Amino acid sequence: MQLFSKLRSSILTQPILEINLKKLVENYKQLNDLCAPAVAAAVIKDDAYGVGAKEVVRVLYEKAGCRTFFAAHALEACEVADLAPDATFFILQGIGEDSLPLFQKYGFVAVIGSPQMLAFYKKHQKGLARPAIQIETGLNRLGFRREDLQKLSDKDRKMFCLVMSHLAAADEQGHFMNSVQLKNFEDLKEKYFKDLPASLSASDGVFLGQNFHFDMVRLGAAVYGINTAPYRPNQMQNIVTLKAPVLQTADLKKGEFVGYSATYRATTNRKIAIVSIGYGDGIKRSLSNVGKVYFKQGLKFKEARIIGRVSMDNVICDVTELKDIEAGIFGFLIFDEYTLDDMARDAGTIAYEILSDMGKGKRFIKKYISEK
Amino acid sequence: MQLFSKLRSSILTQPILEINLKKLVENYKQLNDLCAPAVAAAVIKDDAYGVGAKEVVRVLYEKAGCRTFFAAHALEACEVADLAPDATFFILQGIGEDSLPLFQKYGFVAVIGSPQMLAFYKKHQKGLARPAIQIETGLNRLGFRREDLQKLSDKDRKMFCLVMSHLAAADEQGHFMNSVQLKNFEDLKEKYFKDLPASLSASDGVFLGQNFHFDMVRLGAAVYGINTAPYRPNQMQNIVTLKAPVLQTADLKKGEFVGYSATYRATTNRKIAIVSIGYGDGIKRSLSNVGKVYFKQGLKFKEARIIGRVSMDNVICDVTELKDIEAGIFGFLIFDEYTLDDMARDAGTIAYEILSDMGKGKRFIKKYISEK
Repeated sequence: MQLFSKLRSSILTQPILEINLKKLVENYKQLNDLCAPAVAAAVIKDDAYGVGAKEVVRVLYEKAGCRTFFAAHALEACEVADLAPDATFFILQGIGEDSLPLFQKYGFVAVIGSPQMLAFYKKHQKGLARPAIQIETGLNRLGFRREDLQKLSDKDRKMFCLVMSHLAAADEQGHFMNSVQLKNFEDLKEKYFKDLPASLSASDGVFLGQNFHFDMVRLGAAVYGINTAPYRPNQMQNIVTLKAPVLQTADLKKGEFVGYSATYRATTNRKIAIVSIGYGDGIKRSLSNVGKVYFKQGLKFKEARIIGRVSMDNVICDVTELKDIEAGIFGFLIFDEYTLDDMARDAGTIAYEILSDMGKGKRFIKKYISEK
Repeated sequence: MQLFSKLRSSILTQPILEINLKKLVENYKQLNDLCAPAVAAAVIKDDAYGVGAKEVVRVLYEKAGCRTFFAAHALEACEVADLAPDATFFILQGIGEDSLPLFQKYGFVAVIGSPQMLAFYKKHQKGLARPAIQIETGLNRLGFRREDLQKLSDKDRKMFCLVMSHLAAADEQGHFMNSVQLKNFEDLKEKYFKDLPASLSASDGVFLGQNFHFDMVRLGAAVYGINTAPYRPNQMQNIVTLKAPVLQTADLKKGEFVGYSATYRATTNRKIAIVSIGYGDGIKRSLSNVGKVYFKQGLKFKEARIIGRVSMDNVICDVTELKDIEAGIFGFLIFDEYTLDDMARDAGTIAYEILSDMGKGKRFIKKYISEK
């Protein structure tokens, strides 16, 4: 304990974000095993959900043999294409005037979701990779509607390399949309794309059963450790640890206020810790007076409630019941015992949004862990 | 109109974020005039609230003569220090083991908020710039408490170049905390830092009156166009335009659902537009079924409500009542008539958080406008 006290006694100011790439690879492999023989494509849009597309593509390509990736925009894929030279990149938002040169240069596969986009593709077809077709089965987002499919010529239909759709409520096991969409997908595939490879599920759909797997699954959130089957305990490993140093502790007297707009008032004397992280680092303002920071107490972690509003650079938490909290020690915002999903629940959103916003933070010391 | 129809008929996929630097400079100058003779420092933490610290520092330094900047972390300041060679950078989170080398290299001014940090500073004082002191007046965040100030030696007190504090509720004109904090600040300054330059207000405080200005104001949000005096119409110019192309339109039949978890169901036949932007670009999920996308209709803009959940890459909006909406035309998410503040109100947060998250987006075509 003497040593611990000494280590603690310095001043630190910067938050630290650790991404465990080894566990990420293990998550991918576990899902790959679950879905075999379907191809396990990795979804790396939005900078790999904030985790870092370069690191994710590199590690999945080199350590897990992944050769199929999905990005939303061609712009995203071209930043990582060189890291996976013989891989295929599908572009979910499809192809347009603004991205055409990237498709020509890199050979990306456009996911085409409308007759208008198909017309655009055909106009510029020379030298482009064969496209995929997105069909609409119930989400009512991008995709060919039933009436659009009827109008496709035989030649058009044979142009595609993959037929795909996307589930609306696959994270709810018993949701009526799952069976509706599965049936729609099977019907439309049978009618228009009988022998074409097919893909319906993202990483929530894969847990609904093998009949949802088809020839390819598109694995995003679950690879990054998010529980996409929240009706049961998470089968994936958390890959994110976010911690930030206590900058200062202080005594709060009964009746004193904390933070912007004085939304917290102490009803008894309290001890508070100011932690060097805020919504500028992706800690949502909706965690004001609700979220938690965890501190090591001996071998265990104990929670300290966030009090007052989350500000851009700091959160303040109540450490009255904790021991040895002082400047320089780290509070944990996300870790194995309080995951992205737990924080999302407290913040009133989903882990995807938490990770997407947080991952873009520029003020972390960002560490990628390759070995356990 | 013929020409318009032709222009519209292409396919585009990427959102576009425009930042008007000319208006940003005008905002700064307007605030500078309001606060003179107080020094108008610019706050550029969190990548200048997401606007882009490099562009902001460059333009405020070159076009507005700004020579004083506040960052949260030394890490942030060192990325822009070379753009403003004779300027002073204050670091709000202060100095620690992890940032000491940057202070030594760049001569940043540490804002010291606790006796522990002061001890750290003194231990490494040689070659460092004179620090500023943050004192606590009611926010109960970082800062020397009254009892800490009593313990400061005369020599310690004379070490500082600036005494500062931060207001908790300056965006609410009649909030009791404003007068409480003003009085606390005046008392403590009189008692401990009589002749030292002083700073109390950020860009909300400056609108509370000249007695809140002291010797320096710290201008952040208002420079970026946010209304920091929401009890009256915004005196600042909006600097942000965010637009995204319609990827596809579709007919929605009565009874059909839209988006994840099928949270929207059409009670009549509708026309929908799928717009190529989502929470991966900072469009908050809390705008699901609440937010708006605007479309040019002749010379005016008309709103289309977001229906269903905001997803990572797309929002879907109801364009039934609008004319000529088709793939390739732009929907406006933020512009002069629906500002950051308006979106924040709909999303249940503040414009600061909207801009901070959105500004970090990596999938925009980002344009900086220097001329009107």
